[in-house]
Amino acid sequence: MTSTLVLLRHGESTWNAENLFTGWVDVPLSEKGEAEAKRGGELLREAGALPDVLHTSLLRRAISTANMALDVADRHWIPVRRDWRLNERHYGALQGKNKKQTLETYGEEQFMLWRRSYDTPPPEIELGSEFSQDADPRYADLGADLPRTECLKDVVARLLPYWESAIVPDLRAGRTVLVAAHGNSLRALVKHLDGISDDAIAGLNIPTGIPLRYDLDDNFKPLNPGGTYLDPEAAEKAAAAVANQGR
Amino acid sequence: MTSTLVLLRHGESTWNAENLFTGWVDVPLSEKGEAEAKRGGELLREAGALPDVLHTSLLRRAISTANMALDVADRHWIPVRRDWRLNERHYGALQGKNKKQTLETYGEEQFMLWRRSYDTPPPEIELGSEFSQDADPRYADLGADLPRTECLKDVVARLLPYWESAIVPDLRAGRTVLVAAHGNSLRALVKHLDGISDDAIAGLNIPTGIPLRYDLDDNFKPLNPGGTYLDPEAAEKAAAAVANQGR
Repeated sequence: MTSTLVLLRHGESTWNAENLFTGWVDVPLSEKGEAEAKRGGELLREAGALPDVLHTSLLRRAISTANMALDVADRHWIPVRRDWRLNERHYGALQGKNKKQTLETYGEEQFMLWRRSYDTPPPEIELGSEFSQDADPRYADLGADLPRTECLKDVVARLLPYWESAIVPDLRAGRTVLVAAHGNSLRALVKHLDGISDDAIAGLNIPTGIPLRYDLDDNFKPLNPGGTYLDPEAAEKAAAAVANQGR
Repeated sequence: MTSTLVLLRHGESTWNAENLFTGWVDVPLSEKGEAEAKRGGELLREAGALPDVLHTSLLRRAISTANMALDVADRHWIPVRRDWRLNERHYGALQGKNKKQTLETYGEEQFMLWRRSYDTPPPEIELGSEFSQDADPRYADLGADLPRTECLKDVVARLLPYWESAIVPDLRAGRTVLVAAHGNSLRALVKHLDGISDDAIAGLNIPTGIPLRYDLDDNFKPLNPGGTYLDPEAAEKAAAAVANQGR
């Protein structure tokens, strides 16, 4: 039996538009982001890739993207599961900082290490600071699991238990699963699905708002490695733009 | 231990605005309805009535109302449970019909019997007809439970098992529960909570978009019988307007 997994990175947020490191800061979609979310829903509908269940992070930009896309696809009524393990990478002390300024202050090498190295997290965020989540009720149960910074390796480590315990059971039950999440939590998932190396994952960008479909075999390995974008042309253009952020 | 239940009737839909019987037809909110939903979220926030979990029907107007209200109240990230048992009353063959025309065609007595009697359902809807739900994938699992018409007594009968098995356990766990639903599914719930008689329930209308808070005792009986509207003045005005529909 094969199963279908659809990944959807949230549309542009107000902080994407302002070129700020966002991480766990809970910013809304921009108008462009809302349009991307609705377009994502049209693509789902046109492709007949109709989700039976939704998994989201606890962040507004992913939740709103899913709500809008599913409304357009007439699948607003499906069951919803949410988990912090699908959240964006925690950007530590960089949260709220301008990407261009950070590049100028710290230089190309350090900047790219924080953005794209597999195992070098940014400095930890200060507890109680403006863009820290330590007083946020949605994470009250996390205790010591609440990150103060993360590298992609950390995201893989906290994401995979959720993949195994929550997403795989839905796939096993024959459900088409939509995961509405973030650039780095989806990169972590794609790394696992496609068996991408720690080095090679640096070069992989996932565009916003374009559903990425994986057809999975009995062992939840891709029959279509790399997945299939429901709008391949737009995906190619968008991926190039993401790679140029901060320039 | 006391617990908190908040009921929220969806904002005005496009068919409320056109004065049509809606029932299970899945129409969107009107612009006014969207504004009501957001206002509902402001009232939740101002009152500090912050839900820990959301229960909705499978209908867009309740789902959108909840999504918008929770976004405004900064509670968009809470867990969601959806069930057809929270759906609006199925209006049978009246679905899609104009309320004023129906009143004129059938006369005051029959009209009020269908709208407000406890145990007289409208005629059954024809399977396969434009406003029937028999081919709708969201109800595929219902089988013989799929209604073809309902009176309020039928709504009470299908709602109470969900109250007991899904909502009460959340209340027992100490969660503030938001139920975003419909005029008649909420009347059915209020009838149960307040012990309203089959006759007296006819006179009870619940306004759209104004959260109604119940503080419940250990046995899930109201400490504030009738509940407390978070905007009592607006609730009073709106209830009077609902009572005049079809005139």
